[in-house]
Amino acid sequence: MKALRVEKRGVTLSEIERPECGQEALVRVLLSGICKTDLEIAGGYAGFKGTIGHEFVGLIEESPDAIRVGQRVVGEINVGCGKCELCRAGDQRHCPERTVLGIVGRDGAHAEFLRLPLINLLPVPDKIADEHAVFTEPLAAAYGIMERVSVSNSTRVAVIGDGKLGLLCAQSLALTGAPVLLIGKHPEKLRIAERRGIEAVSVKKCSKRKREFDVVVEASGSASGFAMSLNLLRPRGTLVLKSTFHGTTEIDAARVVVDEISVVGSRCGRFAPALDLLKTGAVDVDSLISEEYPLGSGVLALERASKPGILKVLLRP
Amino acid sequence: MKALRVEKRGVTLSEIERPECGQEALVRVLLSGICKTDLEIAGGYAGFKGTIGHEFVGLIEESPDAIRVGQRVVGEINVGCGKCELCRAGDQRHCPERTVLGIVGRDGAHAEFLRLPLINLLPVPDKIADEHAVFTEPLAAAYGIMERVSVSNSTRVAVIGDGKLGLLCAQSLALTGAPVLLIGKHPEKLRIAERRGIEAVSVKKCSKRKREFDVVVEASGSASGFAMSLNLLRPRGTLVLKSTFHGTTEIDAARVVVDEISVVGSRCGRFAPALDLLKTGAVDVDSLISEEYPLGSGVLALERASKPGILKVLLRP
Repeated sequence: MKALRVEKRGVTLSEIERPECGQEALVRVLLSGICKTDLEIAGGYAGFKGTIGHEFVGLIEESPDAIRVGQRVVGEINVGCGKCELCRAGDQRHCPERTVLGIVGRDGAHAEFLRLPLINLLPVPDKIADEHAVFTEPLAAAYGIMERVSVSNSTRVAVIGDGKLGLLCAQSLALTGAPVLLIGKHPEKLRIAERRGIEAVSVKKCSKRKREFDVVVEASGSASGFAMSLNLLRPRGTLVLKSTFHGTTEIDAARVVVDEISVVGSRCGRFAPALDLLKTGAVDVDSLISEEYPLGSGVLALERASKPGILKVLLRP
Repeated sequence: MKALRVEKRGVTLSEIERPECGQEALVRVLLSGICKTDLEIAGGYAGFKGTIGHEFVGLIEESPDAIRVGQRVVGEINVGCGKCELCRAGDQRHCPERTVLGIVGRDGAHAEFLRLPLINLLPVPDKIADEHAVFTEPLAAAYGIMERVSVSNSTRVAVIGDGKLGLLCAQSLALTGAPVLLIGKHPEKLRIAERRGIEAVSVKKCSKRKREFDVVVEASGSASGFAMSLNLLRPRGTLVLKSTFHGTTEIDAARVVVDEISVVGSRCGRFAPALDLLKTGAVDVDSLISEEYPLGSGVLALERASKPGILKVLLRP
């Protein structure tokens, strides 16, 4: 089968053996989405070698539980050991022995087939098109902010970064009724948020705003975004870090102490609430799709996904 | 009057005018304590020029409210504008216009007299000796952790740093019934904690421990302490930053996101609970006093306070 892989010599579209199902389920990928993390892994992040990709929708092709064969599914990407305290409590996301689809020790979704345990696979309601279902993972990650910080309709929220992640975070947070301000650099991306009734402004217009927000979400992944976040927060406010910064980041730790800021990391979220949001159309993901390529053009697609101004690039096996 | 001041040419013991009382109270300082922040200010931190020092016990010498003259007091160090939202809510500590005793825009406590508004001055119960009362401010700062993070008797807590701050933090946290581990480099300091029934170990013995603690308090102010904190925390654990790091600090922000850590800054605490702790002897501050000097030897005392192994150095006007 075809698979988009990171190897020692770089990213290649390879022909590899179709995986054996074993105790897990074999999934025929219908559509996969390229995430910024894929680009970072291609650049060396996390030292991963193998098939990349962790956003997908597919059909169960083979399964130890035959009744689920043919089901259209999306899949939670963390696979825990099943034995540790965290796994037994029903949360594999922080299992120290976990593998992660296309990120840690497990081949990923930019391929014709992938493997995941059955418990990771959630059926997709018929109402959700493949092109929307493929956003379940990143939308869950955005909505996962609500697991980490309390947001109500009186919480003043700013989101920094108008990329895919920032746009999903802004929309997710706005569903709480909180006044959300999206801050970015690209007028055409800011307009996507505005069409959903979210206030959006350019970075330049915010350079002098200070101490206004209870919660700031850093979704730009840039050091300047981090510094701006600290400026925008009120004392004792909360800075949510969504981007996986590569390498170390310089922070003004004295500022964190003096203003008694909370810096809260947020990574993966639950899939069930994300599927609900997609089913009701509460979040616009259509506007986030920039381009689609056949899997065979995966290397080109990755290159396109790295260009400024491009939002989601999809791959169809 | 004598005052220990940071001037353009460095730290000097100067003879200056005794301050006018005005709308505030004039306090005759009985004893002041040298804090690490004093040393940092002497080294250029915060750009402060003037009389340093913010830990003291004294007697009200003059006051707009005559009934309080003669009262023995300690003083909250933040003086707010009295008009902003934060001040009106009863918390001057984060007023953006605040002055801070011996730190921001207000002469401090290493002097024969100081000025503070009456509302900042809390009477000291007779049972508390001057030598203990002078610890009210740093103990309040340590106990202030409990305003920022929830700690119960099942919370696994580590404190990194066996200096004055670390020892006060470890003792304050242990009062909740939580199992507290103090990690430091100085056997004689670790013993102070052990005498209070707190487990204490050397940094070397902890180099391989990982993901064990719910809450880690960074009170060493070193980059290595910061890195160790991240190692010791369980996923979704809380790192409390107590030290005012000078300049920027390199952090592994990806780690904060992947492990979904909360980094929580903590600065000043309330004085009333600290006075209660001193009154009942719940916290040992006696063992933290290393040396005492007359104010006239303030420059030498500052130098002594900067030496490794030295804990609190007191100044007596």
